[in-house]
Amino acid sequence: MRVFGVDPGLTRCGFGVVDGGPGRVVRAVAVDVLRTPVDAPLSVRLHELYDGVCVWLDRYEPQVVAIERVFAQHNVRTAMGVAQASGVVALAAAQRNLPVEFHTPSEVKAAVTGSGRADKAQVTAMVTKLLGLKVAPKPADAADALALAICHHWRAPMRNRLEEAQARAAELARVHKAKLAEAARRSGS
Amino acid sequence: MRVFGVDPGLTRCGFGVVDGGPGRVVRAVAVDVLRTPVDAPLSVRLHELYDGVCVWLDRYEPQVVAIERVFAQHNVRTAMGVAQASGVVALAAAQRNLPVEFHTPSEVKAAVTGSGRADKAQVTAMVTKLLGLKVAPKPADAADALALAICHHWRAPMRNRLEEAQARAAELARVHKAKLAEAARRSGS
Repeated sequence: MRVFGVDPGLTRCGFGVVDGGPGRVVRAVAVDVLRTPVDAPLSVRLHELYDGVCVWLDRYEPQVVAIERVFAQHNVRTAMGVAQASGVVALAAAQRNLPVEFHTPSEVKAAVTGSGRADKAQVTAMVTKLLGLKVAPKPADAADALALAICHHWRAPMRNRLEEAQARAAELARVHKAKLAEAARRSGS
Repeated sequence: MRVFGVDPGLTRCGFGVVDGGPGRVVRAVAVDVLRTPVDAPLSVRLHELYDGVCVWLDRYEPQVVAIERVFAQHNVRTAMGVAQASGVVALAAAQRNLPVEFHTPSEVKAAVTGSGRADKAQVTAMVTKLLGLKVAPKPADAADALALAICHHWRAPMRNRLEEAQARAAELARVHKAKLAEAARRSGS
Protein backbone atom coordinates (compact mmCIF):
# COMPACT_ATOMS: atom_id res chain seq x y z
CA MET A 1 0.00 0.00 0.00
CA ARG A 2 1.17 3.52 -0.79
CA VAL A 3 0.27 6.33 1.61
CA PHE A 4 0.52 10.07 0.91
CA GLY A 5 1.07 11.87 4.21
CA VAL A 6 0.35 15.60 4.42
CA ASP A 7 1.28 17.98 7.22
CA PRO A 8 -1.04 20.81 6.15
CA GLY A 9 -0.07 24.47 6.13
CA LEU A 10 0.06 27.53 3.88
CA THR A 11 3.54 28.83 4.69
CA ARG A 12 4.98 25.31 4.58
CA CYS A 13 3.03 22.16 3.71
CA GLY A 14 4.86 18.85 4.20
CA PHE A 15 4.37 16.08 1.61
CA GLY A 16 5.62 12.52 2.20
CA VAL A 17 4.94 9.36 0.19
CA VAL A 18 5.66 6.05 1.94
CA ASP A 19 5.21 2.46 0.68
CA GLY A 20 4.47 -0.35 3.12
CA GLY A 21 6.05 -3.77 2.77
CA PRO A 22 5.53 -7.03 4.69
CA GLY A 23 5.42 -6.71 8.48
CA ARG A 24 6.36 -3.26 9.62
CA VAL A 25 8.65 -2.45 6.69
CA VAL A 26 8.21 1.08 5.32
CA ARG A 27 10.03 2.73 2.43
CA ALA A 28 10.22 6.44 1.56
CA VAL A 29 9.23 7.21 -2.04
CA ALA A 30 9.26 11.03 -2.01
CA VAL A 31 9.33 13.92 0.41
CA ASP A 32 9.16 17.68 -0.02
CA VAL A 33 7.75 20.88 1.37
CA LEU A 34 5.46 23.16 -0.62
CA ARG A 35 5.54 26.85 0.24
CA THR A 36 3.06 29.51 -0.80
CA PRO A 37 3.83 33.27 -0.81
CA VAL A 38 3.06 34.85 2.58
CA ASP A 39 1.97 38.13 0.96
CA ALA A 40 -0.49 36.54 -1.49
CA PRO A 41 -4.25 36.54 -0.77
CA LEU A 42 -5.43 33.49 1.17
CA SER A 43 -7.52 32.19 -1.73
CA VAL A 44 -4.52 32.35 -4.09
CA ARG A 45 -2.37 30.47 -1.57
CA LEU A 46 -5.04 27.75 -1.27
CA HIS A 47 -5.14 27.52 -5.07
CA GLU A 48 -1.35 27.05 -5.28
CA LEU A 49 -1.43 24.41 -2.56
CA TYR A 50 -4.30 22.57 -4.29
CA ASP A 51 -2.43 22.53 -7.61
CA GLY A 52 0.69 21.18 -5.87
CA VAL A 53 -1.28 18.41 -4.15
CA CYS A 54 -2.93 17.43 -7.45
CA VAL A 55 0.50 17.10 -9.10
CA TRP A 56 1.72 14.82 -6.30
CA LEU A 57 -1.44 12.67 -6.29
CA ASP A 58 -1.23 12.16 -10.04
CA ARG A 59 2.53 11.56 -10.03
CA TYR A 60 2.73 9.09 -7.11
CA GLU A 61 -0.78 7.57 -7.25
CA PRO A 62 -1.18 6.72 -3.54
CA GLN A 63 -4.02 4.42 -2.38
CA VAL A 64 -4.83 6.59 0.63
CA VAL A 65 -4.17 10.11 1.91
CA ALA A 66 -3.32 10.70 5.59
CA ILE A 67 -3.65 14.26 6.88
CA GLU A 68 -2.73 15.66 10.26
CA ARG A 69 -5.85 16.58 12.20
CA VAL A 70 -5.81 20.25 13.17
CA PHE A 71 -6.59 21.30 16.71
CA ALA A 72 -7.14 24.76 18.10
CA GLN A 73 -3.68 26.16 18.59
CA HIS A 74 -2.30 29.19 20.38
CA ASN A 75 -2.90 31.24 17.26
CA VAL A 76 -6.50 30.96 16.05
CA ARG A 77 -5.74 32.62 12.70
CA THR A 78 -2.96 30.11 12.00
CA ALA A 79 -5.18 27.18 13.04
CA MET A 80 -7.87 28.36 10.63
CA GLY A 81 -5.35 28.67 7.77
CA VAL A 82 -4.12 25.15 8.50
CA ALA A 83 -7.70 23.84 8.55
CA GLN A 84 -8.45 25.54 5.21
CA ALA A 85 -5.27 24.01 3.76
CA SER A 86 -6.28 20.54 5.00
CA GLY A 87 -9.70 21.09 3.38
CA VAL A 88 -8.30 21.60 -0.12
CA VAL A 89 -5.95 18.61 0.32
CA ALA A 90 -8.92 16.40 1.31
CA LEU A 91 -10.88 17.76 -1.67
CA ALA A 92 -8.10 16.85 -4.13
CA ALA A 93 -8.09 13.30 -2.70
CA ALA A 94 -11.89 12.96 -2.82
CA GLN A 95 -11.90 14.10 -6.47
CA ARG A 96 -9.74 11.01 -7.17
CA ASN A 97 -11.95 8.71 -5.05
CA LEU A 98 -9.11 8.24 -2.56
CA PRO A 99 -9.97 7.62 1.10
CA VAL A 100 -8.75 10.31 3.49
CA GLU A 101 -7.85 9.62 7.10
CA PHE A 102 -6.98 12.16 9.75
CA HIS A 103 -4.52 11.41 12.54
CA THR A 104 -3.84 13.64 15.54
CA PRO A 105 -0.29 14.87 16.23
CA SER A 106 -0.11 12.69 19.36
CA GLU A 107 -1.21 9.57 17.44
CA VAL A 108 1.56 10.25 14.92
CA LYS A 109 4.19 10.83 17.61
CA ALA A 110 3.11 7.74 19.53
CA ALA A 111 3.22 5.61 16.36
CA VAL A 112 6.83 6.46 15.45
CA THR A 113 8.44 7.18 18.86
CA GLY A 114 6.24 5.32 21.35
CA SER A 115 5.35 8.57 23.10
CA GLY A 116 2.52 10.95 22.20
CA ARG A 117 4.52 13.81 23.69
CA ALA A 118 7.79 13.33 21.78
CA ASP A 119 9.46 16.49 20.46
CA LYS A 120 10.21 17.34 16.83
CA ALA A 121 13.86 16.17 17.03
CA GLN A 122 12.77 12.75 18.31
CA VAL A 123 10.16 12.37 15.55
CA THR A 124 12.72 13.33 12.88
CA ALA A 125 15.30 10.90 14.35
CA MET A 126 12.83 7.99 14.33
CA VAL A 127 11.53 8.77 10.83
CA THR A 128 15.14 8.81 9.54
CA LYS A 129 15.81 5.47 11.27
CA LEU A 130 12.56 3.68 10.33
CA LEU A 131 12.88 4.65 6.65
CA GLY A 132 16.63 3.95 6.58
CA LEU A 133 17.41 7.43 5.24
CA LYS A 134 21.01 8.61 4.93
CA VAL A 135 20.14 12.18 5.90
CA ALA A 136 17.38 13.47 8.15
CA PRO A 137 14.45 14.99 6.24
CA LYS A 138 14.22 18.76 6.68
CA PRO A 139 12.39 20.94 7.63
CA ALA A 140 10.27 19.42 10.43
CA ASP A 141 7.16 19.62 8.21
CA ALA A 142 8.75 17.17 5.76
CA ALA A 143 9.62 14.73 8.57
CA ASP A 144 6.09 15.14 9.99
CA ALA A 145 4.54 14.25 6.64
CA LEU A 146 6.60 11.03 6.49
CA ALA A 147 5.72 10.27 10.13
CA LEU A 148 2.02 10.68 9.27
CA ALA A 149 2.32 8.21 6.40
CA ILE A 150 4.14 5.68 8.63
CA CYS A 151 1.52 6.19 11.34
CA HIS A 152 -1.20 5.42 8.82
CA HIS A 153 0.55 2.24 7.63
CA TRP A 154 0.78 0.94 11.17
CA ARG A 155 -2.59 2.07 12.45
CA ALA A 156 -4.66 1.04 9.40
CA PRO A 157 -4.42 -2.77 9.90
CA MET A 158 -5.35 -2.37 13.57
CA ARG A 159 -8.28 -0.16 12.63
CA ASN A 160 -9.40 -2.59 9.93
CA ARG A 161 -9.25 -5.53 12.37
CA LEU A 162 -11.32 -3.50 14.83
CA GLU A 163 -13.89 -2.66 12.16
CA GLU A 164 -14.07 -6.33 11.07
CA ALA A 165 -14.58 -7.43 14.68
CA GLN A 166 -17.34 -4.84 15.08
CA ALA A 167 -19.00 -5.97 11.85
CA ARG A 168 -18.82 -9.63 13.00
CA ALA A 169 -20.32 -8.71 16.38
CA ALA A 170 -23.14 -6.80 14.68
CA GLU A 171 -23.84 -9.79 12.39
CA LEU A 172 -23.90 -12.22 15.37
CA ALA A 173 -26.30 -9.88 17.20
CA ARG A 174 -28.55 -9.76 14.13
CA VAL A 175 -28.61 -13.59 13.79
CA HIS A 176 -29.27 -13.98 17.52
CA LYS A 177 -32.14 -11.50 17.38
CA ALA A 178 -33.66 -13.29 14.36
CA LYS A 179 -33.47 -16.63 16.23
CA LEU A 180 -35.18 -15.14 19.27
CA ALA A 181 -37.93 -13.70 17.08
CA GLU A 182 -38.37 -17.06 15.36
CA ALA A 183 -38.59 -18.85 18.75
CA ALA A 184 -41.16 -16.30 19.98
CA ARG A 185 -43.21 -16.74 16.79
CA ARG A 186 -43.24 -20.57 17.20
CA SER A 187 -44.17 -20.53 20.89
CA GLY A 188 -46.93 -18.04 20.07
CA SER A 189 -48.43 -20.11 17.21
CA MET B 1 -21.35 44.68 -8.90
CA ARG B 2 -22.54 41.16 -8.09
CA VAL B 3 -21.43 39.56 -4.82
CA PHE B 4 -21.68 35.87 -3.90
CA GLY B 5 -21.98 35.59 -0.11
CA VAL B 6 -21.19 32.27 1.55
CA ASP B 7 -21.91 31.26 5.14
CA PRO B 8 -19.63 28.21 5.17
CA GLY B 9 -20.55 24.88 6.72
CA LEU B 10 -20.79 21.18 5.96
CA THR B 11 -24.19 20.37 7.45
CA ARG B 12 -25.68 23.57 6.00
CA CYS B 13 -23.82 26.04 3.77
CA GLY B 14 -25.65 29.29 2.99
CA PHE B 15 -25.39 30.74 -0.55
CA GLY B 16 -26.63 34.24 -1.40
CA VAL B 17 -26.13 36.28 -4.57
CA VAL B 18 -26.78 40.02 -4.28
CA ASP B 19 -26.46 42.77 -6.92
CA GLY B 20 -25.61 46.32 -5.91
CA GLY B 21 -27.26 49.34 -7.51
CA PRO B 22 -26.68 53.10 -7.15
CA GLY B 23 -26.32 54.35 -3.57
CA ARG B 24 -27.15 51.68 -1.06
CA VAL B 25 -29.59 49.77 -3.25
CA VAL B 26 -29.19 45.99 -3.09
CA ARG B 27 -31.17 43.32 -4.90
CA ALA B 28 -31.37 39.57 -4.18
CA VAL B 29 -30.59 37.38 -7.19
CA ALA B 30 -30.58 33.91 -5.61
CA VAL B 31 -30.43 32.28 -2.21
CA ASP B 32 -30.24 28.68 -1.06
CA VAL B 33 -28.70 26.32 1.44
CA LEU B 34 -26.51 23.39 0.41
CA ARG B 35 -26.50 20.37 2.72
CA THR B 36 -24.03 17.48 2.68
CA PRO B 37 -24.77 14.07 4.26
CA VAL B 38 -23.77 14.02 7.95
CA ASP B 39 -22.73 10.35 7.75
CA ALA B 40 -20.44 10.75 4.70
CA PRO B 41 -16.65 11.00 5.13
CA LEU B 42 -15.39 14.56 5.57
CA SER B 43 -13.51 14.53 2.25
CA VAL B 44 -16.65 13.45 0.37
CA ARG B 45 -18.67 16.22 2.03
CA LEU B 46 -16.02 18.79 1.02
CA HIS B 47 -16.16 17.45 -2.54
CA GLU B 48 -19.97 17.82 -2.68
CA LEU B 49 -19.75 21.35 -1.29
CA TYR B 50 -17.03 22.28 -3.81
CA ASP B 51 -19.11 20.98 -6.72
CA GLY B 52 -22.11 22.96 -5.49
CA VAL B 53 -20.08 26.17 -5.19
CA CYS B 54 -18.67 25.69 -8.71
CA VAL B 55 -22.21 25.35 -10.12
CA TRP B 56 -23.27 28.60 -8.43
CA LEU B 57 -20.14 30.51 -9.51
CA ASP B 58 -20.61 29.45 -13.12
CA ARG B 59 -24.36 30.05 -13.12
CA TYR B 60 -24.41 33.50 -11.46
CA GLU B 61 -20.93 34.79 -12.42
CA PRO B 62 -20.30 37.08 -9.42
CA GLN B 63 -17.43 39.60 -9.49
CA VAL B 64 -16.40 38.86 -5.91
CA VAL B 65 -16.91 36.18 -3.26
CA ALA B 66 -17.54 37.18 0.38
CA ILE B 67 -17.07 34.45 2.99
CA GLU B 68 -17.77 34.57 6.71
CA ARG B 69 -14.52 34.49 8.64
CA VAL B 70 -14.41 31.56 11.04
CA PHE B 71 -13.44 32.04 14.63
CA ALA B 72 -12.77 29.44 17.28
CA GLN B 73 -16.18 28.42 18.54
CA HIS B 74 -17.38 26.40 21.50
CA ASN B 75 -16.95 23.25 19.46
CA VAL B 76 -13.45 22.94 18.00
CA ARG B 77 -14.39 20.09 15.67
CA THR B 78 -17.24 22.13 14.19
CA ALA B 79 -15.00 25.19 13.78
CA MET B 80 -12.43 23.09 11.89
CA GLY B 81 -15.12 21.66 9.59
CA VAL B 82 -16.36 25.19 8.90
CA ALA B 83 -12.79 26.35 8.16
CA GLN B 84 -12.24 23.42 5.79
CA ALA B 85 -15.51 24.25 4.04
CA SER B 86 -14.47 27.91 3.68
CA GLY B 87 -11.15 26.72 2.21
CA VAL B 88 -12.77 24.83 -0.67
CA VAL B 89 -15.14 27.77 -1.34
CA ALA B 90 -12.14 30.15 -1.54
CA LEU B 91 -10.36 27.66 -3.82
CA ALA B 92 -13.30 27.52 -6.26
CA ALA B 93 -13.27 31.34 -6.41
CA ALA B 94 -9.49 31.55 -6.90
CA GLN B 95 -9.69 29.01 -9.76
CA ARG B 96 -11.95 31.56 -11.53
CA ASN B 97 -9.64 34.50 -10.67
CA LEU B 98 -12.30 35.99 -8.42
CA PRO B 99 -11.22 38.05 -5.41
CA VAL B 100 -12.25 36.60 -2.04
CA GLU B 101 -12.93 38.73 1.02
CA PHE B 102 -13.59 37.52 4.54
CA HIS B 103 -15.89 39.37 6.92
CA THR B 104 -16.36 38.58 10.59
CA PRO B 105 -19.84 37.79 11.95
CA SER B 106 -19.83 41.07 13.92
CA GLU B 107 -18.91 43.10 10.80
CA VAL B 108 -21.83 41.49 8.98
CA LYS B 109 -24.28 42.08 11.83
CA ALA B 110 -23.11 45.70 12.23
CA ALA B 111 -23.46 46.34 8.48
CA VAL B 112 -27.08 45.23 8.24
CA THR B 113 -28.47 46.00 11.73
CA GLY B 114 -26.16 48.69 13.10
CA SER B 115 -25.10 46.42 15.97
CA GLY B 116 -22.31 43.85 15.95
CA ARG B 117 -24.18 41.89 18.61
CA ALA B 118 -27.56 41.59 16.87
CA ASP B 119 -29.29 38.20 17.08
CA LYS B 120 -30.26 35.95 14.16
CA ALA B 121 -33.89 37.14 14.12
CA GLN B 122 -32.76 40.77 13.80
CA VAL B 123 -30.34 39.94 10.96
CA THR B 124 -33.06 38.00 9.11
CA ALA B 125 -35.57 40.85 9.61
CA MET B 126 -33.14 43.46 8.23
CA VAL B 127 -32.05 41.29 5.29
CA THR B 128 -35.73 40.78 4.37
CA LYS B 129 -36.34 44.52 4.59
CA LEU B 130 -33.19 45.73 2.81
CA LEU B 131 -33.71 43.35 -0.10
CA GLY B 132 -37.48 43.99 -0.22
CA LEU B 133 -38.30 40.29 0.04
CA LYS B 134 -41.89 39.15 0.49
CA VAL B 135 -40.91 36.26 2.76
CA ALA B 136 -37.99 35.98 5.17
CA PRO B 137 -35.18 33.76 3.85
CA LYS B 138 -34.86 30.50 5.81
CA PRO B 139 -32.95 28.89 7.44
CA ALA B 140 -30.68 31.39 9.22
CA ASP B 141 -27.70 30.26 7.09
CA ALA B 142 -29.48 31.52 3.96
CA ALA B 143 -30.20 34.90 5.56
CA ASP B 144 -26.59 35.06 6.78
CA ALA B 145 -25.26 34.48 3.27
CA LEU B 146 -27.37 37.38 1.95
CA ALA B 147 -26.26 39.55 4.89
CA LEU B 148 -22.63 38.77 4.04
CA ALA B 149 -23.12 39.85 0.44
CA ILE B 150 -24.85 43.10 1.54
CA CYS B 151 -22.05 43.71 4.06
CA HIS B 152 -19.51 43.34 1.27
CA HIS B 153 -21.39 45.77 -1.01
CA TRP B 154 -21.41 48.43 1.69
CA ARG B 155 -17.96 47.88 3.14
CA ALA B 156 -16.08 47.55 -0.16
CA PRO B 157 -16.37 51.25 -1.25
CA MET B 158 -15.31 52.36 2.25
CA ARG B 159 -12.37 49.99 2.15
CA ASN B 160 -11.38 51.18 -1.33
CA ARG B 161 -11.54 54.86 -0.23
CA LEU B 162 -9.38 53.99 2.78
CA GLU B 163 -6.84 52.25 0.59
CA GLU B 164 -6.78 55.19 -1.84
CA ALA B 165 -6.27 57.63 1.06
CA GLN B 166 -3.43 55.49 2.39
CA ALA B 167 -1.82 55.36 -1.06
CA ARG B 168 -2.14 59.18 -1.41
CA ALA B 169 -0.61 59.69 2.05
CA ALA B 170 2.28 57.38 1.17
CA GLU B 171 2.86 59.29 -2.08
CA LEU B 172 2.83 62.66 -0.26
CA ALA B 173 5.31 61.32 2.30
CA ARG B 174 7.56 60.12 -0.53
CA VAL B 175 7.48 63.52 -2.29
CA HIS B 176 8.12 65.34 0.99
CA LYS B 177 11.07 63.10 1.79
CA ALA B 178 12.55 63.67 -1.69
CA LYS B 179 12.22 67.46 -1.25
CA LEU B 180 13.95 67.29 2.14
CA ALA B 181 16.77 65.23 0.63
CA GLU B 182 17.10 67.71 -2.24
CA ALA B 183 17.23 70.66 0.21
CA ALA B 184 19.87 68.88 2.31
CA ARG B 185 21.92 68.12 -0.83
CA ARG B 186 21.79 71.81 -1.91
CA SER B 187 22.72 73.22 1.50
CA GLY B 188 25.55 70.69 1.72
CA SER B 189 27.02 71.47 -1.72
